[in-house]
Amino acid sequence: MNLIELLNWRYATKSMNGNKVPSEKLENILEAIRLSASSAGLQPYKVIVISDPELKNEIRKIAYDQSQITDSSELLIFAGWDKVTPERIDSFIQNIADTRNVSLESLEGMKSMVSANSNLSPEATIAWTGKQSYIGLGTALIAAANEGVDATPMEGFVNDQLDALLDLPSMGLKSTAILALGYRNEENDWLVNLPKVRTPKEEFIIRK
Amino acid sequence: MNLIELLNWRYATKSMNGNKVPSEKLENILEAIRLSASSAGLQPYKVIVISDPELKNEIRKIAYDQSQITDSSELLIFAGWDKVTPERIDSFIQNIADTRNVSLESLEGMKSMVSANSNLSPEATIAWTGKQSYIGLGTALIAAANEGVDATPMEGFVNDQLDALLDLPSMGLKSTAILALGYRNEENDWLVNLPKVRTPKEEFIIRK
Repeated sequence: MNLIELLNWRYATKSMNGNKVPSEKLENILEAIRLSASSAGLQPYKVIVISDPELKNEIRKIAYDQSQITDSSELLIFAGWDKVTPERIDSFIQNIADTRNVSLESLEGMKSMVSANSNLSPEATIAWTGKQSYIGLGTALIAAANEGVDATPMEGFVNDQLDALLDLPSMGLKSTAILALGYRNEENDWLVNLPKVRTPKEEFIIRK
Repeated sequence: MNLIELLNWRYATKSMNGNKVPSEKLENILEAIRLSASSAGLQPYKVIVISDPELKNEIRKIAYDQSQITDSSELLIFAGWDKVTPERIDSFIQNIADTRNVSLESLEGMKSMVSANSNLSPEATIAWTGKQSYIGLGTALIAAANEGVDATPMEGFVNDQLDALLDLPSMGLKSTAILALGYRNEENDWLVNLPKVRTPKEEFIIRK
């Protein structure tokens, strides 16, 4: 399938059948997210992969009892940095220096540019790191479809409770979205055969 | 190229050569964005396509003089809704009813769910609609690479000035990102041959 066909094939799967996603496919999806763009390449978020059935049960309770949570193969939790700290910036800069074999001194300009984000308020920080994580989410949806894997992106969960359950505050993270990966249960999914609804192109696109 | 190869091929192009993107490729990229996922399928953002050279000149002045602005073929401006209004919700619900040939009454539950977002503060609204637009941005980056088109995502611009220049407030929109589309100028681009830097997988991915 070409990209447009993949985007038409995918949909927010409402019922999954519990089948496992093969490890190679899962790793390809995760690698695509890791390669995604982000502001200055900072990647100010992480992806938590949940395979444990008991943990999925707990998450379902704080995610409006959505069945895909427990009928998925894996859940990907996207979680943005809650603060752009000096340690995180140093680690980012060191990685550039190591990967490109350049001096830390030559990266002072980059460091100072990225450091501007450390002054953001907590709300502005998670708004910004959350946006970066959604570039990864957009990538993940295409990567999953490309592997023939169904996916349901979800914002319907109690963020603070999920953060506490996964001990995210201790890692300086806040959850931004859940992506359930698995396979559609065609017989039980009310959405599977309905036409995709999108804003008409002439309304969605403005040309200047 | 497969998806991983496309993601490795693309990079935030620092110098473009002014060549035009063929219309068919541009339309494929725009269609991919339009087909992207969003919360409840609401698509609370628009994409403004800028081809006019004079308008690009004006935008470059409020975007830290980045050369790709004027050396691009097109600029895509992603702009989130500044408010989830009753009119916008009604239009969304009407589109579902028309596309799926169902009654408005059968969509009352969906309408009430989406309406919850109309109570968000202005800051929370643009944080949320901005995130949805970044799913589209992530899609656009892959769609461009898939067409062999280079792309530079940019947050480095003065949002309020861009909004005013494009008369976005009158449309109830706020700019969230610029995506320059065009072709790399290999001789002048300092980044083109440098290795891509990404957080190592064992740090970026947490497994539970």
